[in-house]
Amino acid sequence: MNNLVLAADLGGTNLRMATVDAAGTVGNLVKRPVPDAVSPDQLVALIDKIAGQVFEEVDRSRITAVAFTAPAPVAEDFDGVLTKLPNLGSVTGMNLNTELEKLFGLPMVIENDATAAAIGENWIGASRGVENCVTVTLGTGIGGGIIINGRPIRGKDGIGGEIGHITVEPGGRPCKCGNHGCVEEYASATALARMAVDHRHPARTSLQLYESWQKGDKIAEQIFATMGRYLGQMLAGLANALNPEIFVICGGLAEGIDAFGDHVRTEIAARAYPAAAKTGVVVKGELGDNAGIIGVARSTFNRSADG
Amino acid sequence: MNNLVLAADLGGTNLRMATVDAAGTVGNLVKRPVPDAVSPDQLVALIDKIAGQVFEEVDRSRITAVAFTAPAPVAEDFDGVLTKLPNLGSVTGMNLNTELEKLFGLPMVIENDATAAAIGENWIGASRGVENCVTVTLGTGIGGGIIINGRPIRGKDGIGGEIGHITVEPGGRPCKCGNHGCVEEYASATALARMAVDHRHPARTSLQLYESWQKGDKIAEQIFATMGRYLGQMLAGLANALNPEIFVICGGLAEGIDAFGDHVRTEIAARAYPAAAKTGVVVKGELGDNAGIIGVARSTFNRSADG
Repeated sequence: MNNLVLAADLGGTNLRMATVDAAGTVGNLVKRPVPDAVSPDQLVALIDKIAGQVFEEVDRSRITAVAFTAPAPVAEDFDGVLTKLPNLGSVTGMNLNTELEKLFGLPMVIENDATAAAIGENWIGASRGVENCVTVTLGTGIGGGIIINGRPIRGKDGIGGEIGHITVEPGGRPCKCGNHGCVEEYASATALARMAVDHRHPARTSLQLYESWQKGDKIAEQIFATMGRYLGQMLAGLANALNPEIFVICGGLAEGIDAFGDHVRTEIAARAYPAAAKTGVVVKGELGDNAGIIGVARSTFNRSADG
Repeated sequence: MNNLVLAADLGGTNLRMATVDAAGTVGNLVKRPVPDAVSPDQLVALIDKIAGQVFEEVDRSRITAVAFTAPAPVAEDFDGVLTKLPNLGSVTGMNLNTELEKLFGLPMVIENDATAAAIGENWIGASRGVENCVTVTLGTGIGGGIIINGRPIRGKDGIGGEIGHITVEPGGRPCKCGNHGCVEEYASATALARMAVDHRHPARTSLQLYESWQKGDKIAEQIFATMGRYLGQMLAGLANALNPEIFVICGGLAEGIDAFGDHVRTEIAARAYPAAAKTGVVVKGELGDNAGIIGVARSTFNRSADG
């Protein structure tokens, strides 16, 4: 079969579009920035333009489906209306289904971005072939995608997988989600940069802090240890509740897993049931930035197979 | 159909056995204490004796399957060997499958006790008809059963649902599971009794504390508020991760839900995503002590239907 999916990762910063084949191979990748405060009409025009660039490289008749991730809740009964978009609030209320239908007139799947990454890694990445896994997207914020009994957990309202807002310090720091003490406040790139300032460390970004860590900087080590312990505490809770085979660390911060991964593992071992801690290994994702595109394309193939 | 299941709830304190029909009706219930440090042979003899008492009341030819709960991990590939039994350690290593096969020679299902309670409530109880729900068993300890996309989460090692050992205070009280700061240390009957002592309250049991609460005792109110907040904090994390339709409170402490339920609800509302908090209502179980027996019988009917 030479069928291809036109797959896109729609984020608050970039729109990435590519073709994905039935083996998960990504081709013809185009990446463009999404303007601040983009309007729905502008976003549709941008999608159309980028798709045009992809179509310059590929025979359009081979495209049999369209697959989009969205930085928004996607429930089982999702109707395409984008809501609760912390990083793309300017298109709130837009019906992405309707717009994509008008543009392409093809079968279509939309998945939450972190859920899509989890599906991608579960298909041909770090958690391939496993029935139960948790994918953590570590970046500016913390998101997640959970697959149990082989199926993604979307939840009644599409909130499922929002593990960045699990409380790890009951009286802790206020979070923009309204809670306080969320793990995102202690283990995201934003949290690392904040802790650097708190410790009077010269690093101003998580990358700079990581570069200090690579040089053996003791303060950087201490900050990554704190970050890893909080992430491990949260994952230990999921190890007990869900007892998955694997925890996959994705997102930009995953590149620094050697600075914090062992602290995560030690904390899970200290807090979770021994069998669950032993089973739930912590590894880096294998698909990098393409996990979402690959995952949402997979959902397209799956749904086609279902009927 | 007049077929019946011989269903039993095997705990550290009691063995309860009954017949359950295809509508979930419980009949011929017999309950007997399980001796301390019971040996595998003694347990088999006890099962045989109690089954004999049930069979005095019912035509044995109507019994088409046997269903047992166990206070032990039960994974998807469970082979019947009982391990990790915090409340029934004396039968560790016993193969319950083999023994039940010898006794009854009938198709058989074994479920973890809390998972069985979740299945029961999801079948004909408080969460009936719902695809995603979390059942909390509140008693001496805290356990749980989680159903997602209509299927119980057993986890790779059968640990799934052990929500009583999710951390709510990272530097908190040591727990017998090896972790510290588990929600079980703050929201179980044991924790309530301990908090009464800490507050120099005369109550020595959770029931006595509840009776004080009923009389308007301010210290009792404060203790139940603390207990409810910690339970709510843990459930708020599950609301974000799993976004279930309902949280069902079962177990002995569920009888006191009017003393703590609103604190649980307030804490979930304060900590979880608004949509997830609004969706995940907190209610008392409807099946009482029979939830496990009914649930494991349901699993028998399900598996018969599957083949």
